[in-house]
Amino acid sequence: MTLENISANKLFGGWHKQYSHQSESLNCEMRFAIYLPPQASDTHKVPVLYWLSGLTCTDENFMQKAGAARVAAELGLAIVAPDTSPRGEGVADDPEGAYDLGLGAGFYLNATEAPWRDHYQMYDYVARELPKIIEQNFPVTDQRAISGHSMGGHGALTIGLKHQDMYQSISAFSPITNPTKTPWGKKAFTAYLGANTDSWKPYDACELIQSVSVNRPILVDQGTKDNFLEQELTPDRLVQAAQKAGVPLDLRLQDGYDHSYYFISSFIEDHLRFHKKHL
Amino acid sequence: MTLENISANKLFGGWHKQYSHQSESLNCEMRFAIYLPPQASDTHKVPVLYWLSGLTCTDENFMQKAGAARVAAELGLAIVAPDTSPRGEGVADDPEGAYDLGLGAGFYLNATEAPWRDHYQMYDYVARELPKIIEQNFPVTDQRAISGHSMGGHGALTIGLKHQDMYQSISAFSPITNPTKTPWGKKAFTAYLGANTDSWKPYDACELIQSVSVNRPILVDQGTKDNFLEQELTPDRLVQAAQKAGVPLDLRLQDGYDHSYYFISSFIEDHLRFHKKHL
Repeated sequence: MTLENISANKLFGGWHKQYSHQSESLNCEMRFAIYLPPQASDTHKVPVLYWLSGLTCTDENFMQKAGAARVAAELGLAIVAPDTSPRGEGVADDPEGAYDLGLGAGFYLNATEAPWRDHYQMYDYVARELPKIIEQNFPVTDQRAISGHSMGGHGALTIGLKHQDMYQSISAFSPITNPTKTPWGKKAFTAYLGANTDSWKPYDACELIQSVSVNRPILVDQGTKDNFLEQELTPDRLVQAAQKAGVPLDLRLQDGYDHSYYFISSFIEDHLRFHKKHL
Repeated sequence: MTLENISANKLFGGWHKQYSHQSESLNCEMRFAIYLPPQASDTHKVPVLYWLSGLTCTDENFMQKAGAARVAAELGLAIVAPDTSPRGEGVADDPEGAYDLGLGAGFYLNATEAPWRDHYQMYDYVARELPKIIEQNFPVTDQRAISGHSMGGHGALTIGLKHQDMYQSISAFSPITNPTKTPWGKKAFTAYLGANTDSWKPYDACELIQSVSVNRPILVDQGTKDNFLEQELTPDRLVQAAQKAGVPLDLRLQDGYDHSYYFISSFIEDHLRFHKKHL
């Protein structure tokens, strides 16, 4: 496996870099971005926050818009941002180019249905392949945290809950909390996983938080003026599921904030400091 | 003159908003963005930083990528970001769609040559029309500062130096300092102002800093790994011109930084605090 460096920009004394590589799990060329804080060196390894982006995003949105590097540089934290789906020639896409299925909409799961199963294995990519690549190629420790936004919030919660051995802490902005019951999730899961809804449950944070033993801290921020709040994100269901399971979930409703990166940038510092505390 | 509100996003307790309006000076519909910090209200007016963006930008680049709102919210500073050229049907553009002439490349001057002169009056728009609009429609004082990047750094330096009565402080990132002598500037000035280079000098920071009496503080940041450093930006010439004129210019060379918003975001906090000190 070789990494090809695509870009490098000095940023808050550290480096923002993009790399492409052939992904085994996705069976295509993938790009990711990494922020390495000034503290990171061959003799000083740093912990890593994995950031999973939402629908339509690539590795770039978070790195350009969230303003996270300032605090990551202060805390000595690396950040890795993968793409949101497989890409390239031969990778299936929604025939009508919908933004919520196919390219840019991998939903952090392993597809079992044709034509998606050939490439749409984002769960394996994020939870298995990517951390190995990062830890083999960059000055990072095996201390990891995971976070994300919207579809990526769903990814962070579900992957984090299933792999608490891997991630010390879990957070999310505006996550899709109950995709087995809400429109984006039902559409994507039907296409990627088929009609049998039993196969959907391992990818639903509301289900998982009740079925696994939770011993990692979880922080969620949700704007009250988010256009997708009631139909797609349903934070109240996650709160109820956590209460039912006796899991101490810190879900903060942020008054007047929407679904955009303006919201994320306003609270990303809190998330980085939360993760740092547990790394 | 009516302002049409296009978007509103809560951001660090304040509001990022975009507006469109019919511009008298540009003779077309224009869009600008404003960040209003949480302190701004009908009973508490706040000072304003005007930010001028570089080639190819709109009102959005700075607001999405610079991470300025956090510090503006702390300091109680509004930020206004205009577009970089006139836009819309009937507005001339470079016939070959060059990025350095026409749309996205207004160069903050008043064009005198056909076909540009009908709309390309960005100097009047920024220095005369826009501050009036802002001060009539938003809770801001008449305390102003000006900054910008690359072509917008040129705009901030030249407009700031010519209107020291209007702006309390001036700053720039990677400015085009001597456009009468460098390729982007010569191409644009020839098209917009004609072949007589006497008409170019009032739009050249190196010329102006020697021909006006400077009594405002000036801060400039320039990355040492900027691809455009030697051919287009020539910070050494600005330093020499300022020395010759006895003007105390604070030009900081930032080691390893490039021309991107990753650079701007790394040092925007310093600029906001610099301006706030003088407002």
